[in-house]
Amino acid sequence: MDANLAKPFTSIVGESNIKNSQAQLLAYSYDATANFQAKPDMVLSPKSTEEIRDIVKICSKERIPIISRGSGTNLAAGTVPTQGGIVLLFNNMNKILELDEENLTITVQPGVITQDLSNFVEKHNLFYPPDPSSMKISTIGGNVSENSGGLRGLKYGVTKDYVKALTVVLPNGEVLKLGGKLAKDVAGYDLLSLLVGSEGTLGIITEITLKLIPLPISKKTGIAYFNSLEDAARTVSSIIAHKIIPVTLEFMDKGTIGAVEDFMKIGLPRDAEAMLLMEQDGNAEQVERDIQTMIAIAEKEGATSTVMASSDEEAEVLKTGRRAALSALARKRPTTILEDATVPRSEISKMVRAIQEIAEKYNVQITTFGHAGDGNLHPTCLTDVRDKEEMERVEQALAEIFHVAIELGGTITGEHGVGEMKAPYLEWKLGESGIDLMKAIKNSIDPLNIMNPGKLFAKETKMRLVIHNG
Amino acid sequence: MDANLAKPFTSIVGESNIKNSQAQLLAYSYDATANFQAKPDMVLSPKSTEEIRDIVKICSKERIPIISRGSGTNLAAGTVPTQGGIVLLFNNMNKILELDEENLTITVQPGVITQDLSNFVEKHNLFYPPDPSSMKISTIGGNVSENSGGLRGLKYGVTKDYVKALTVVLPNGEVLKLGGKLAKDVAGYDLLSLLVGSEGTLGIITEITLKLIPLPISKKTGIAYFNSLEDAARTVSSIIAHKIIPVTLEFMDKGTIGAVEDFMKIGLPRDAEAMLLMEQDGNAEQVERDIQTMIAIAEKEGATSTVMASSDEEAEVLKTGRRAALSALARKRPTTILEDATVPRSEISKMVRAIQEIAEKYNVQITTFGHAGDGNLHPTCLTDVRDKEEMERVEQALAEIFHVAIELGGTITGEHGVGEMKAPYLEWKLGESGIDLMKAIKNSIDPLNIMNPGKLFAKETKMRLVIHNG
Repeated sequence: MDANLAKPFTSIVGESNIKNSQAQLLAYSYDATANFQAKPDMVLSPKSTEEIRDIVKICSKERIPIISRGSGTNLAAGTVPTQGGIVLLFNNMNKILELDEENLTITVQPGVITQDLSNFVEKHNLFYPPDPSSMKISTIGGNVSENSGGLRGLKYGVTKDYVKALTVVLPNGEVLKLGGKLAKDVAGYDLLSLLVGSEGTLGIITEITLKLIPLPISKKTGIAYFNSLEDAARTVSSIIAHKIIPVTLEFMDKGTIGAVEDFMKIGLPRDAEAMLLMEQDGNAEQVERDIQTMIAIAEKEGATSTVMASSDEEAEVLKTGRRAALSALARKRPTTILEDATVPRSEISKMVRAIQEIAEKYNVQITTFGHAGDGNLHPTCLTDVRDKEEMERVEQALAEIFHVAIELGGTITGEHGVGEMKAPYLEWKLGESGIDLMKAIKNSIDPLNIMNPGKLFAKETKMRLVIHNG
Repeated sequence: MDANLAKPFTSIVGESNIKNSQAQLLAYSYDATANFQAKPDMVLSPKSTEEIRDIVKICSKERIPIISRGSGTNLAAGTVPTQGGIVLLFNNMNKILELDEENLTITVQPGVITQDLSNFVEKHNLFYPPDPSSMKISTIGGNVSENSGGLRGLKYGVTKDYVKALTVVLPNGEVLKLGGKLAKDVAGYDLLSLLVGSEGTLGIITEITLKLIPLPISKKTGIAYFNSLEDAARTVSSIIAHKIIPVTLEFMDKGTIGAVEDFMKIGLPRDAEAMLLMEQDGNAEQVERDIQTMIAIAEKEGATSTVMASSDEEAEVLKTGRRAALSALARKRPTTILEDATVPRSEISKMVRAIQEIAEKYNVQITTFGHAGDGNLHPTCLTDVRDKEEMERVEQALAEIFHVAIELGGTITGEHGVGEMKAPYLEWKLGESGIDLMKAIKNSIDPLNIMNPGKLFAKETKMRLVIHNG
């Protein structure tokens, strides 16, 4: 990037909102993804839609890549500036602009931390359900760009189900306002949904209006341990067959249970093959009925032990294990790769079993936890990026996991996004005509390819694997 | 269209599935929209995705327009073949293919009648919430293409919230499978949402997988009459402020109440300025609490009378009036134009008042009913298409209604679609850059413009009106 360009960018954002020392560029050269790193040319912190518009106009003229970045928690290298250019931060655009209690909406800037937004609306007895595990540090702008999921997805859906309006700066520098505080709007193509989850490749989101719902009054938590994956999977199916849609239905396999127990020493049964954490929210009577029914179902399907929390404090204790899963696993080896292969709910036990077999086959360490209710699993690979030979086996194992997920009617990513890491696998899910359609759309909106280039679209698609025999 | 082309099309669909007599072409020359009519060149009833693929390949080569048509209930001329070509029917593709009770999905062909689908899943204690008023005759394919709404939109959302997977024949004849039986999937752009509501302009939908939810156990209905629009609007706001999201919250104005009473003679209070029909569903205790609270709120906000149904039969009686609204109005004049200007919930009373003023200003007859909870109003204009002078005033009045809706943060169509009728007004909502973006997408997917040409994109945008003084 032409060094003379620092000047016009500085005049837009001001001296204090530009970072370009080597140390600063290094700090924004990676996100939460292992094995991806590249320095940007400049890091800018604009203060308004207008400043972003002016930045984009220069980038369009000079063909400079722009990478929007929230808190950098991305797990698919979606925010690594692999082709250099400008990293755009939203630390100066982190205000809650309006809570509209009559239309049940909140309007915010992209830099608001998701947990802060959640806490803010709950004080008003309102509820923003999407709860990605990173919500304590992730930004709502990042959540919208990635269409983030979370633990409550089964009952309440994901981020896209709550986005009502967006202000977007298009690659040509035009500012577009999409949607409104409307429950229904069919005026033209659903551009709003196209932008949500587009991972910064179609435009820069500068203002967000989200739908809220009333805060559920009551909540109950239970837990069940099983001697076999199949018993746990049957419990999940039976809960749904009983027409109960719990707010969360979380799963940990034996490897994860063991790692958590090593880490926390809270008395988890190390011999259990599977654990289900069950929660329901809503009005008190229904919550009580549902949690009782779920515990009874678990017992009927062969749970070796069950616990029902009798207070919020006890519920917190039960949840501690699941919450600590990633940290507990991450301390075991230098590198943690958290995946999110997702399958139809009916295929969970097949998928978990396949993951175990694949880990054995490639002699790598993979344990699985995740959201059982919505089939969104997190196979977590513990490895060491410095060991090239092992990393090759890891990559083969993960490719085979994606392959099996798709064979089972699933997808390569349920909530983390494609980024650059999974781009070579996207064609497995969408087919060549799906990729062509995406490329046509990308090219029609961002013909100069300045918006987060290298993401979603791979230079080369990985060869398809021979069909798995599991 | 070249007469020789009947032969290859006949060889695809078979002799009995092609219609091209003048009487048959006349039958498919219009839909439910007043004042739009044009004959197609041919009407085809394919039996499979493969047949549709073969039809599209010929159409692409010969640049023949294709208009997908369900039951022709479109209210925005979306299914009128205004540029000739082929009307595609789905009467041979009307099967329910699979109910998956474990993943809570149903897979159907596009020609299934929405009510049949709804009845089918309810027998299994499952629920498909979208309920457009036309559901007794409309097809699910039409609903998906239009992203249809309905009375339960406030609580349960609209069609797009339930579409999990689609098979689509693209304009180039490629067959694309999008989505899956997944609660979470972020693999690439949300092409599924782009297709839903695209009004047949991007591809032909040939198979649909929909999400289902458990059927609510209990349901209660109440009704309230008011002396002023503002009292009714305050009731709606207060219900939401009490954190109640009712399943339906329907509204009729004085004109509609009078028309229904003329028609049905069921003893509605002709002097009431507004009526609210309130329904809640869910578990029995919560439903009972909510309906009691809603009635109490209505009384507090000045309702002149309220009724709570004590049985399902009584509830049916209360609903009769609202259900008969359109029929009651339609019998008054030769032509009925049903609009669906939609505003944020907080702006309902302003919008209804503005509609009344606009009707007076242009000396036309417009009454309003609709979905108060989600701001989706149905101003209904009673007129006579043969009276050109009156029709000109009607068009001016409707244009001003769209204008006010947008000024109030609303949209020109909440659930009916843009079609050809509202295309000239779309730019008012999306702006020039929004239209440009839509055009870029359309052109990238359907460069030959064979998919329902003339819809969504107008040759000319209507001039903006001077701002309304209401």
